[in-house]
Amino acid sequence: MAERFRIAIAGLGTVGAGTVELLAAQRDLLTPRSGRSLELVAVSARDRSKDRGLSLPGIVWYEDAVEMAREAEIDLLVESIGGSEGVALETVRAALSRGCHVVTANKALVAHHGAALARLAAEKGACLAYEAAVAGGIPIIKVLREGLSANRLTRVYGILNGTSNFIMSSMRKTGRAFSDVLAEAQALGYAEADPSFDVDGIDAAHKLAILAALCFGCEVDFEGVYIEGVRDISAFDVEAAEELGYRIKLLGIAASENGRVRQRVHPCMLPMDTPIATVEGVLNAVVAEGDYIGSVMQQGPGAGAKATASAVVADIVDIARGNRVPTFTVPVSTLRKAARASMDSHLGSYYLRIPVRDEPGVIADISAILRDHNISMEAMLQHGRADTVGKPVQVVITTHTTSESAMREALKQIGACERVLSEPSLIRIERF
Amino acid sequence: MAERFRIAIAGLGTVGAGTVELLAAQRDLLTPRSGRSLELVAVSARDRSKDRGLSLPGIVWYEDAVEMAREAEIDLLVESIGGSEGVALETVRAALSRGCHVVTANKALVAHHGAALARLAAEKGACLAYEAAVAGGIPIIKVLREGLSANRLTRVYGILNGTSNFIMSSMRKTGRAFSDVLAEAQALGYAEADPSFDVDGIDAAHKLAILAALCFGCEVDFEGVYIEGVRDISAFDVEAAEELGYRIKLLGIAASENGRVRQRVHPCMLPMDTPIATVEGVLNAVVAEGDYIGSVMQQGPGAGAKATASAVVADIVDIARGNRVPTFTVPVSTLRKAARASMDSHLGSYYLRIPVRDEPGVIADISAILRDHNISMEAMLQHGRADTVGKPVQVVITTHTTSESAMREALKQIGACERVLSEPSLIRIERF
Repeated sequence: MAERFRIAIAGLGTVGAGTVELLAAQRDLLTPRSGRSLELVAVSARDRSKDRGLSLPGIVWYEDAVEMAREAEIDLLVESIGGSEGVALETVRAALSRGCHVVTANKALVAHHGAALARLAAEKGACLAYEAAVAGGIPIIKVLREGLSANRLTRVYGILNGTSNFIMSSMRKTGRAFSDVLAEAQALGYAEADPSFDVDGIDAAHKLAILAALCFGCEVDFEGVYIEGVRDISAFDVEAAEELGYRIKLLGIAASENGRVRQRVHPCMLPMDTPIATVEGVLNAVVAEGDYIGSVMQQGPGAGAKATASAVVADIVDIARGNRVPTFTVPVSTLRKAARASMDSHLGSYYLRIPVRDEPGVIADISAILRDHNISMEAMLQHGRADTVGKPVQVVITTHTTSESAMREALKQIGACERVLSEPSLIRIERF
Repeated sequence: MAERFRIAIAGLGTVGAGTVELLAAQRDLLTPRSGRSLELVAVSARDRSKDRGLSLPGIVWYEDAVEMAREAEIDLLVESIGGSEGVALETVRAALSRGCHVVTANKALVAHHGAALARLAAEKGACLAYEAAVAGGIPIIKVLREGLSANRLTRVYGILNGTSNFIMSSMRKTGRAFSDVLAEAQALGYAEADPSFDVDGIDAAHKLAILAALCFGCEVDFEGVYIEGVRDISAFDVEAAEELGYRIKLLGIAASENGRVRQRVHPCMLPMDTPIATVEGVLNAVVAEGDYIGSVMQQGPGAGAKATASAVVADIVDIARGNRVPTFTVPVSTLRKAARASMDSHLGSYYLRIPVRDEPGVIADISAILRDHNISMEAMLQHGRADTVGKPVQVVITTHTTSESAMREALKQIGACERVLSEPSLIRIERF
């Protein structure tokens, strides 16, 4: 008979409850695959009376997750409480401090405290695993940390937030405005009542910071991520992108450039034949680039109880098997803070949308400012010009490669022009 | 200082030489990642005088790979000789028999002897790893065996042969015939002088049999794979597919159906918006479906010295770290032969191309035969009908779901019709 491997689950929300369900339903598979009998022995959640549709006979119930982490007789604790501070953090610290392995789905926690927790785990001989924290069911952590271990990874990028991707896909397919589509996403349960984490890019930034640490063997540096969300993308932008041969996606992109790490989350215009541009709806996708592999892409479900539980339990099986991999690929003793590459020094091409009063000379003014900043135009569109003289109209410009700082300066001057009616908007064009 | 981990490489072709190069070039990365000093200590190849552009100072050279496997003081042997029998097989057996770990890129070997070698490895406490054998640099073995370990996998399918995918992509883009494009692929080095393994589906079948064993926890059953290659796909088929909204790809598809495993490699027509239909050129892609994950797709380079070496060395790093996973996911004691689901019982829809003499009544004849076999037509195309009466013309028919056996019977009768000029051809339509 297989030796027992005792598990506690802290937090019985979507992820915690999904994990309880999976461990019970797949018992016959998991024992031969892990070589151990994976047994749920304790759970914690604040409200014991709530009906979660779970059967938990013989399982010790704690109201206090930290107490469970300190006292329960367990080999591994699953943290699915959520939040970067407070109970989640204390629970994980308490478990690791006793040498108890931890599996977490909590991206905020790993993004803010990843390096410190990895050090604590290493010191106590425990594992800290977090496959479920990035891209849900896609085994991207395993691919980057183990599957591509022979590579110097140079760049990683992806669609890391399903809610934003659903909104962008839906805006494109229906031509509707952001606020309309957000309301639909909320009704479908794809977006929270407070959608800020998703649509303002924070959730994607948490995940990107974790991926960057893994790829480049450095401390997680969430504060170093440049972040823009998708709130300001208009139906007009989506249509103009289509006309120019692009799709708009919220991407997280981290690259190692001359010893510095550049991390950014923002809407991108991607040529339509870019593989990641075709990933639609709530799906996530991650592309990793390395010196031997070239480029590998994974796509799949980025959220949901079942897919996330699949990732949590894959981590449990690995740990139960006795397999050990450094938390961020390299031993914690060599984890260093990476130097940041600033957003100002980013080089790329741009899409600009400039609301102007349609009068002779406005294009000349804008063109002169771009020229003065050494910015070369690639294309210019001005819709419905003929019937709009003297009225507001949108001028769309795409540029060749230039620096972010030059573009920012130019936009400031363009915004101050008399015939420019409001703040111009900018979307970065990415060619991978 | 990290403990030594001694490696021998048998065979210095593309994969072997690529691995020698990678181990030297990435030394600074590999030591912290594996926790060991990965040292190449011995190599074998038949012709020592050949210039391979490799620097091998202090490395013991064997002319006989089997002798090296038996005698060299090593922890792990990389087999990159190739071929399912003979020296490759003997070398791997010799190494495993002494408890020496083996990493191989040899799909034919694993497809034909996977179960027996896995048993030998387990008995001797050695690892047998083969990430490079399927889909080159894509870490699909790791994803299936570890990343999705919490799932009951129900189906796996993919573009497993880059040469055939290059040919299909190129036929579509240029409208050229199979033989023309094959000659181009040979000139570019994407196809061998004898292209049979690639274009007749055998290479893809080797890989599919390995994936099926992994996914369903059964013995590798190469003989159980139904195989058709891409030689008979015509420029006409490629164009007709496009017109009907499909792309033609050579896929390997393995599914577990009511306790039976169905394995098949054949050209497929895929609706254009199927993610895998957009994977072009020499790229490979694999989709895995499971009860918790839903569906996950990986795409990347399926061949090439660098990508393949990336996979070989990832296996080495895992083994050097001390991580152990059963060769085919489950302990060898539970590996069983899976019952086969026959191709006759396959249910699907079909594309038919029937060369006919364009005379009144021919469509009526064909329709009656399909009706008599309970096959429902979805669409029918007959190009340029007006100017061809009495001349040869291609009738294209797509059907709704029917059984392979009914379709075979119907095709036999259609082929025997007086106005049908030669054997009709058939391509299976797949909707994932």
